[in-house]
Amino acid sequence: MADKKVEAITSMEEDFAQWYTDVVVKADLTGYTSVKGFMVLKPAGYAIWELIQKQLDAKFKETGVENVYLPMLIPEGLLQKEKDHVEGFAPEVAWVTHGGLNELQEKLCVRPTSETLFCDFYQKDITSYRDLPKVYNQWCSVVRWEKETRPFLRSREFLWQEGHTAHATAEEAEERTIQMLNVYADFCEQVLAIPVVKGQKTEKEKFAGAVATYTIEALMHDGKALQSGTSHNFGDGFAKAFGVQYADKDNQLKYVHQTSWGVTTRLIGAIIMVHGDDNGLKLPPMVAPTQVMIVPIQQKKEGVLEKAEELRERLAKVSRVKVDATDKSPGFKFAECEMRGIPLRVEIGPRDIENNQCVLVRRDNGEKITVSLDELETKVDELLKTIQKDMLEAARAHRDAHTYEARNWEEFVDTINNRPGFIKAMWCGDTECEEHIKAETGASTRCMPFEQEQLSDVCVCCGKPAKKMVYFGRAY
Amino acid sequence: MADKKVEAITSMEEDFAQWYTDVVVKADLTGYTSVKGFMVLKPAGYAIWELIQKQLDAKFKETGVENVYLPMLIPEGLLQKEKDHVEGFAPEVAWVTHGGLNELQEKLCVRPTSETLFCDFYQKDITSYRDLPKVYNQWCSVVRWEKETRPFLRSREFLWQEGHTAHATAEEAEERTIQMLNVYADFCEQVLAIPVVKGQKTEKEKFAGAVATYTIEALMHDGKALQSGTSHNFGDGFAKAFGVQYADKDNQLKYVHQTSWGVTTRLIGAIIMVHGDDNGLKLPPMVAPTQVMIVPIQQKKEGVLEKAEELRERLAKVSRVKVDATDKSPGFKFAECEMRGIPLRVEIGPRDIENNQCVLVRRDNGEKITVSLDELETKVDELLKTIQKDMLEAARAHRDAHTYEARNWEEFVDTINNRPGFIKAMWCGDTECEEHIKAETGASTRCMPFEQEQLSDVCVCCGKPAKKMVYFGRAY
Repeated sequence: MADKKVEAITSMEEDFAQWYTDVVVKADLTGYTSVKGFMVLKPAGYAIWELIQKQLDAKFKETGVENVYLPMLIPEGLLQKEKDHVEGFAPEVAWVTHGGLNELQEKLCVRPTSETLFCDFYQKDITSYRDLPKVYNQWCSVVRWEKETRPFLRSREFLWQEGHTAHATAEEAEERTIQMLNVYADFCEQVLAIPVVKGQKTEKEKFAGAVATYTIEALMHDGKALQSGTSHNFGDGFAKAFGVQYADKDNQLKYVHQTSWGVTTRLIGAIIMVHGDDNGLKLPPMVAPTQVMIVPIQQKKEGVLEKAEELRERLAKVSRVKVDATDKSPGFKFAECEMRGIPLRVEIGPRDIENNQCVLVRRDNGEKITVSLDELETKVDELLKTIQKDMLEAARAHRDAHTYEARNWEEFVDTINNRPGFIKAMWCGDTECEEHIKAETGASTRCMPFEQEQLSDVCVCCGKPAKKMVYFGRAY
Repeated sequence: MADKKVEAITSMEEDFAQWYTDVVVKADLTGYTSVKGFMVLKPAGYAIWELIQKQLDAKFKETGVENVYLPMLIPEGLLQKEKDHVEGFAPEVAWVTHGGLNELQEKLCVRPTSETLFCDFYQKDITSYRDLPKVYNQWCSVVRWEKETRPFLRSREFLWQEGHTAHATAEEAEERTIQMLNVYADFCEQVLAIPVVKGQKTEKEKFAGAVATYTIEALMHDGKALQSGTSHNFGDGFAKAFGVQYADKDNQLKYVHQTSWGVTTRLIGAIIMVHGDDNGLKLPPMVAPTQVMIVPIQQKKEGVLEKAEELRERLAKVSRVKVDATDKSPGFKFAECEMRGIPLRVEIGPRDIENNQCVLVRRDNGEKITVSLDELETKVDELLKTIQKDMLEAARAHRDAHTYEARNWEEFVDTINNRPGFIKAMWCGDTECEEHIKAETGASTRCMPFEQEQLSDVCVCCGKPAKKMVYFGRAY
């Protein structure tokens, strides 16, 4: 039965997309309803989001962020106030046209993002320099009418946080934009064990209405990129469109400078695709709802279940721990622990009890470690930290091994077709070249990384003088 | 300026409704946008909800509840599957008719509540007795197209949690329904310092589609009742409508028995109206985002701000504490602390420092206590607990003093018109009498309390034999 469960997953090498779907289903992360294009987050999936939310929210608050909640519906007139923004979002929003038994005078869209609402709110709430800065965030769900959907990566509704800030000066806005990008990057590395490349989006790829969009880009196991978080500097464009002004110390009316920044349940997709393997999900301990599963061996023998429960109580002081005392076979339980990505498994049977020991099995590398029960808490605590660290190192090694350089068009085409991963290449700065590269190879500009290198002097596409080194890649 | 701020609130006695609105605005709990009938939860308001959510969620999890997230949109066909339910909700939902640039084939309503979605999900997710019970909950927002709205009490969108469970037997479902009602009642008393009456709703007042609805009813300062949480037993009605079946141990297909239960941001309205006074909000310490505000006196004098900061650091170990070091006057700061409902104020000035003391001022009763700085943490910790307890006692005393008995129609009418509060009275069980009482006096049946008394043998309205003692009251 254990084998059967494992066999039920498609191998990553064979069909990565199918492997992904299999993991999502077998690890019980999402479920289905009759609402097309929408997903259910089941307990195992939602609990990961709760851990992300809790830890990220604490990091936000350390930087002075305050949480608020704004309406989920946006009047059409508000959405249209900023020209670029409405062009970017109008084609993919859901419209509410009737409320109760009546047709609405003005239709309302379900928020695809809330810049317009925050501007409307700030316009009413900000009058003086004393009201600044506003550093607000909300946790909510948004709707975008996607045609093709995949759990976590692209669905018609997803959970996210959206930060929206207003500042007295352009410098302060830019500073906050970069600060939050750094919060995201540190969070991905330290908590999700996912290394990211930090950089700026090109004009073509930036957010609708932004002056500058910054991004963190992660590399999935199949060599495709995933945009994992973005932070936007709006300058005073939205403020001018919405009339968000404040009286400065000199008594002059000035426009505020704004930012916004967000991450979504997409991060769960990233966790799956960065860390998972053919046995299923691998969760970094810091976002694992269950960090340790105790599996009793020969559990019907006297004293085994009691001992397992005793270990659970002891380990509850250092970890999120459960005992699997169901009537499934140990082999099935092992496979299930692996499928669900539980970082550490504890095996305890009659012989172990006799020898005052148990066996710890790491999910990340399969290593088995026999430890004395006397040092159980210390060892488990230590191992969870080691697993967290090793998972980041493994992901970084994979990312680095799949980051290539292309100095000319032939190298670029050869790499993208034969070695899936990031491609670093020089670029002239013209949108035309970006579009050409996308059309010919399917690779898009992921970002202009903060850490620039001078790989050559000319654009990898057109041969004209290069302005920036860019990360390219096929992306989700 | 301090006086001006205080003067700006209407007195409770003069106009309770205006007092309520004033407190909501002056305590900075909600804000406005251009979305009619919707509210913004500002940081001070949202932080109360976060504290409610955190503590209630922990209590849920202790009873085995797991969190999930289901779609925010419900296809019309799903909503219509349970006859009573659709009749109850269809008139007040918002309809999405267009997604992206296209008209939808089937319109979708923004969830007013999610029974239908959970049934649809359970129908796909439950197959065997091994899958039961399902004890799921979600934190989300819902939309109901109300005509008249008031912050927290009635608005077109509100935040809430909705628990939805599925059980193998009717007994287990009833047990869970009552268990969650008790969780709510305990939470209101212990955390919100609001005493509640627990009981069952009448047929007329029960939830659309439920077999039985249980409620907790609280009494506001003006003598009006507020339904503060409900728990519903659905029997197998929804299961039959949606085909939610499981194979039992005997291999027979059986219908599950379901429950649902919820509380909303309305609880914040209850906190305001139970505890507040003419100086503003009064927050029970357990849901006060800031529990202690340190106000430096003569703060420009050497050492005062440093001392205030030192006290903040010390008090941060036992409370959520801030220093108000702005350039406002102490009097203004005092008034602002009171308006925002901060449970405890610490005053520290040069003379206090000299005497190694400070002054603590309780928001709940205005008491001033001079304490030695040596015992500051102990004293503050103690006082916060005392305030929490005393606020419950004060609310209970008010509730009890405004709970009346009516043995006949004259008493009933006299009481409802002259002594706002709960009225306990006997009732024959007929909906006609309920409707008559409502039409004549504006009082509705709040609940048939679990703690029954035999006030007389006859119905207070029609004089026929009485079946139940009921709590009546005018309600929000």
